Amino acid sequence: MLTARIQSIKISVWAVAMAALTVLATPALAQEDEYRDPQEPRWSIAIHGGAGTMRRDSMTEQQQADYKAALQKALDTGAAILKDGGTALDAVEATIRLMEDDPRFNAGKGAVFTWEGTNELDASIMEGNGRNAGAATGVTRTRHPISLARKVMEDSPHVFLSGAGADQFAREQALEQVDPAFFETERRKDALERFKASQVSTLNDSGDDDYKFGTVGAVALDLNGNLAAGTSTGGMTGKRWGRIGDSPVIGAGTYADDRSCAVSATGSGEYFIRVGVAKEICSRLYARFRREIDVAQATVPLDAEGFPTYIIHASEMILTQAQVQEEVDSVMQEVGDLGGDGGVIVTTPIGYTIYSFNTEGMYRGRADSDGLSEVAIFADEVTDPVE
Amino acid sequence: MLTARIQSIKISVWAVAMAALTVLATPALAQEDEYRDPQEPRWSIAIHGGAGTMRRDSMTEQQQADYKAALQKALDTGAAILKDGGTALDAVEATIRLMEDDPRFNAGKGAVFTWEGTNELDASIMEGNGRNAGAATGVTRTRHPISLARKVMEDSPHVFLSGAGADQFAREQALEQVDPAFFETERRKDALERFKASQVSTLNDSGDDDYKFGTVGAVALDLNGNLAAGTSTGGMTGKRWGRIGDSPVIGAGTYADDRSCAVSATGSGEYFIRVGVAKEICSRLYARFRREIDVAQATVPLDAEGFPTYIIHASEMILTQAQVQEEVDSVMQEVGDLGGDGGVIVTTPIGYTIYSFNTEGMYRGRADSDGLSEVAIFADEVTDPVE
Repeated sequence: MLTARIQSIKISVWAVAMAALTVLATPALAQEDEYRDPQEPRWSIAIHGGAGTMRRDSMTEQQQADYKAALQKALDTGAAILKDGGTALDAVEATIRLMEDDPRFNAGKGAVFTWEGTNELDASIMEGNGRNAGAATGVTRTRHPISLARKVMEDSPHVFLSGAGADQFAREQALEQVDPAFFETERRKDALERFKASQVSTLNDSGDDDYKFGTVGAVALDLNGNLAAGTSTGGMTGKRWGRIGDSPVIGAGTYADDRSCAVSATGSGEYFIRVGVAKEICSRLYARFRREIDVAQATVPLDAEGFPTYIIHASEMILTQAQVQEEVDSVMQEVGDLGGDGGVIVTTPIGYTIYSFNTEGMYRGRADSDGLSEVAIFADEVTDPVE
Repeated sequence: MLTARIQSIKISVWAVAMAALTVLATPALAQEDEYRDPQEPRWSIAIHGGAGTMRRDSMTEQQQADYKAALQKALDTGAAILKDGGTALDAVEATIRLMEDDPRFNAGKGAVFTWEGTNELDASIMEGNGRNAGAATGVTRTRHPISLARKVMEDSPHVFLSGAGADQFAREQALEQVDPAFFETERRKDALERFKASQVSTLNDSGDDDYKFGTVGAVALDLNGNLAAGTSTGGMTGKRWGRIGDSPVIGAGTYADDRSCAVSATGSGEYFIRVGVAKEICSRLYARFRREIDVAQATVPLDAEGFPTYIIHASEMILTQAQVQEEVDSVMQEVGDLGGDGGVIVTTPIGYTIYSFNTEGMYRGRADSDGLSEVAIFADEVTDPVE
């Protein structure tokens, strides 16, 4: 009986705490206004265009400015959709479509070449409400792999399609088809030649980011409180044997769950699959949250009849941006410990936007309904001051 | 300063607790000998051959006996390897190879047919020590997909290969190749005809388990304390567009981490991918464990100087078999809530073996170094009494 009563308290505390997820303070206002009106809608978006050994001395000012302009354009596109009340899913898809069309990034046009000299594209998308997901790998004719991933999610009984079958499904769904040559760029073809000349056939970092970085991704929270995440890539230069990286693997390169967060990853995909990075970040945030609740609950003294002497206030149990950052960093630490490099972008149900990467840089940007809007490339660039 | 000291205590408590993972009591002795010598090596193995709407009235006694004999043979093969000091990885591979060759199961010979009338095989394998993993999808010529998955893990720079490239890699690695007709069986061809005749083109359960169940898998703990997990399947009858299910997806159908557990799943793969079942079970066990520690720590009164008045004993923080079962069931509950069905097998670093499934039956078996050895088919079959 006592146990049943305590269990009941536990559940109601849990319910209150879950509701509190919607009142977590945003970074920009964390100092002065820690717990905001839970009814106030907010939106947020974060994007990446790949992580790697970027050095200032290897990029001209003009190149840096070009990349930043491309990131800002993608970010603004997603932000405008969210600001207008559009869905996180729409914002993620539109943002990634733009980056797929931009030859600077290793996704869609501008994808890296396989060992056989082809471009084989991977993408995945997921929405946090209902955890629906779609993904495709080995795409060679569909202009926007991220839109194919969405079609798989919405209009097929499956989650994950591959190869010629994935393109066939895209055609049946009337998605724009292109000649495979559409995706080719000289820069990426040269990278394959250099790769073959160097006889590099392992995952060892060649020091040339054209080999494997440049994956694009976006995560977003919309005004309805729903999360979405998406990732698109050409994979790694010289990939063979139908290699699949983490980008199209739900749980590795992409994950979204309205109870915890939305994640998109970029980097040495094999390590991200083994750690299950995107899913692990969401699981860890959820677990951290439950742990904080249990600890708080355990410290409430019980009265003579076994009831808690006070109810824990929701504000005592929410995660701070620093705690979220800590959990995200701890997962990236595991990737690094295994030997992998790369990074992730994360957003949460209250609109925190988080970067975490163990490379010298990551093409990245973020914006939210509190007026945050920034893009950056190198690790040492000053971004949002609360980080 | 105080915070630093508490943190230090926290870390040592954590270290003690992690060590305690190796002293968890085995089910058979849980009553009389709860905490055993941590130095005593133990092994365990669990297998499955698919989950579904099995009914006693749809199987003859002879069919039941045949399936049980096939399961027992596979179980005994893995158990013998573990008993002799072999690795969990070897046990998992050998067990699954046997089941791949057995036409009763939907893996290797006896795989279901795609919409196009071919057999396309998927498999994955993972070891908990170092979290190495390998997987392949769309295999049509390699006799033992589970061995291909292992080769991908051990002898390629990649984790996940697909299609003709995966078979090519297998040939380069001298794995046995067969004519694609090798995998065909009349029973599965008939299932495709029935599937096409019924015009079923969605994931809705047709009531005929030949459509989608029969995936095989194994999880094992070896005498060195290492875990491994593996899964192999032909997917679902009538699959199209190069559909990839959960079996080859690390984190969905297969996961192993020596810090938490090894998992192999079977069922409606799309749901298992969306929930990230195998990874989520491991994450949840790990998180539960941490939560129990934090709660225990939080309830220790501090003295005037802020130090805990006593150190929590390791035995207070270990998870019981019932707690592990609860966490595993909670993940399967999420699959069920989304509309998915199927099951999982799990083993932990201390040798608990767990089944959890929401179907009427699951071909399954388990054995351990305490003398447990059982096989079962239907949900209502009495298995190990401590469950």
